[in-house]
Amino acid sequence: MTNRPIGIFDSGVGGLTVAAAIKKHLPDESFIYFGDTRHTPYGDKSRDTVQTYSREITEFLLSQDCKAIVIACNTASALAYQKLVKKFPDVPIINVVDPVVNYVAEHAKGKVGIIATRATTQSGIYKKSLLAKKPKLQVVSAATPLLVGIAEEDFTHTDISRGAIKAYLNNDDFSKLSLLILGCTHFPLFQTEIESFYEGKTEVVDSPELVAHHLKSVLVEHKILNEKEREKASYRFYVSEKTKAFSRIARNFFGENITLTEKVLS
Amino acid sequence: MTNRPIGIFDSGVGGLTVAAAIKKHLPDESFIYFGDTRHTPYGDKSRDTVQTYSREITEFLLSQDCKAIVIACNTASALAYQKLVKKFPDVPIINVVDPVVNYVAEHAKGKVGIIATRATTQSGIYKKSLLAKKPKLQVVSAATPLLVGIAEEDFTHTDISRGAIKAYLNNDDFSKLSLLILGCTHFPLFQTEIESFYEGKTEVVDSPELVAHHLKSVLVEHKILNEKEREKASYRFYVSEKTKAFSRIARNFFGENITLTEKVLS
Repeated sequence: MTNRPIGIFDSGVGGLTVAAAIKKHLPDESFIYFGDTRHTPYGDKSRDTVQTYSREITEFLLSQDCKAIVIACNTASALAYQKLVKKFPDVPIINVVDPVVNYVAEHAKGKVGIIATRATTQSGIYKKSLLAKKPKLQVVSAATPLLVGIAEEDFTHTDISRGAIKAYLNNDDFSKLSLLILGCTHFPLFQTEIESFYEGKTEVVDSPELVAHHLKSVLVEHKILNEKEREKASYRFYVSEKTKAFSRIARNFFGENITLTEKVLS
Repeated sequence: MTNRPIGIFDSGVGGLTVAAAIKKHLPDESFIYFGDTRHTPYGDKSRDTVQTYSREITEFLLSQDCKAIVIACNTASALAYQKLVKKFPDVPIINVVDPVVNYVAEHAKGKVGIIATRATTQSGIYKKSLLAKKPKLQVVSAATPLLVGIAEEDFTHTDISRGAIKAYLNNDDFSKLSLLILGCTHFPLFQTEIESFYEGKTEVVDSPELVAHHLKSVLVEHKILNEKEREKASYRFYVSEKTKAFSRIARNFFGENITLTEKVLS
């Protein structure tokens, strides 16, 4: 049955940017989203902890009959993807790093910047993957953990977010970039603010778009794209702890009548 | 031996405000500080997790021959104090909540506000303790978790901190307060900014001062105040992960030549 839902998860609201891109590019697909708001941010947690949370959420999504899993969280992509692929070999699992690395390795024409959580930055996943494909690429990276908190508190498009963007990016390392990778799915919530900061001179890579396109190719490849039995797509949202920001941002992307359930896994 | 050090711990830099007050009021006392920067913030973690971290840190501090323990973290005070007192009955353990509650119950002349992490707010510890002493007191509270991140990123006294203070406090609940309790040891780092926000009309309770005074009385009571064998007090700092903010803030309070060691407990 190809009309089974896609499972998407993140530590909180960040993955909603990926879910929104999936809705846009794959309008016939249903999905179940799990936001681990109780444990956000993942970016300061150990590898073991992130792997445990990711496994529990994946098990839950598979118990809900999901046909594919999207790890819509860079920290979990960096720390838990390999482990999940080994643990669940029968289901297509995609991460948010690979599609971005492929795009950037192809399109970068000068210095590339990466901003991410501390855990993702320390994992070095973007830098290593990019340099493996393009050894001479100039790559700078920085941990910008406060942006996660600002997104989770729903303080985007305020003096707070503008101040933090300037504090993190207004330096030599991050000037004159060809491309900036938002290495955390929370960060597209700051996309227009960051583009304004760079006055349109730096391409702020649209990771959710790239992930949605990659997901489509994976669904086609596995012959599970919902083509034959089209029906109105449905979206279900689970959070490990209800927060105002999650409700507001989810409703902003997906409308007032979303189904939002609190679900504690551990 | 009364010249043994005092053990102080927090999830990160916040407890340094308490350590600084202890240095000021008890200049002959040495201390060992543990900042659990790897696990910061505690404010979004479960009771079990905070109890486990607190127990491990206390065991470490006692292994370093500490004569008393100061839980310089409101979340750990709210979630782990009782458990630590039971687990380590032979050592005086003080928390940062009780001295503040005693002061406020005595001095409040109108509405009292509390800002804290989500976990401390949800525990209701300040509100419950205050109402137990003064049932008719009007008490409002709010979770202001982003202030922890701002302090850990060393963004106090910037547009970011001013914006966050306004976003959290500029509302009816928090107007016309008699007293504001900073229910997180990170928040005294915003003391002057919050006082400016209230234009000096609301007393922002100086919790570190109150805790230092309480510690002194406990040391006197247990006859372990360092009076007989005075010598130059020494300060040692441990963190579970070295961060720029911790080094900078610790040096700011205690001078350039501090001893700072990374120590992973679990």
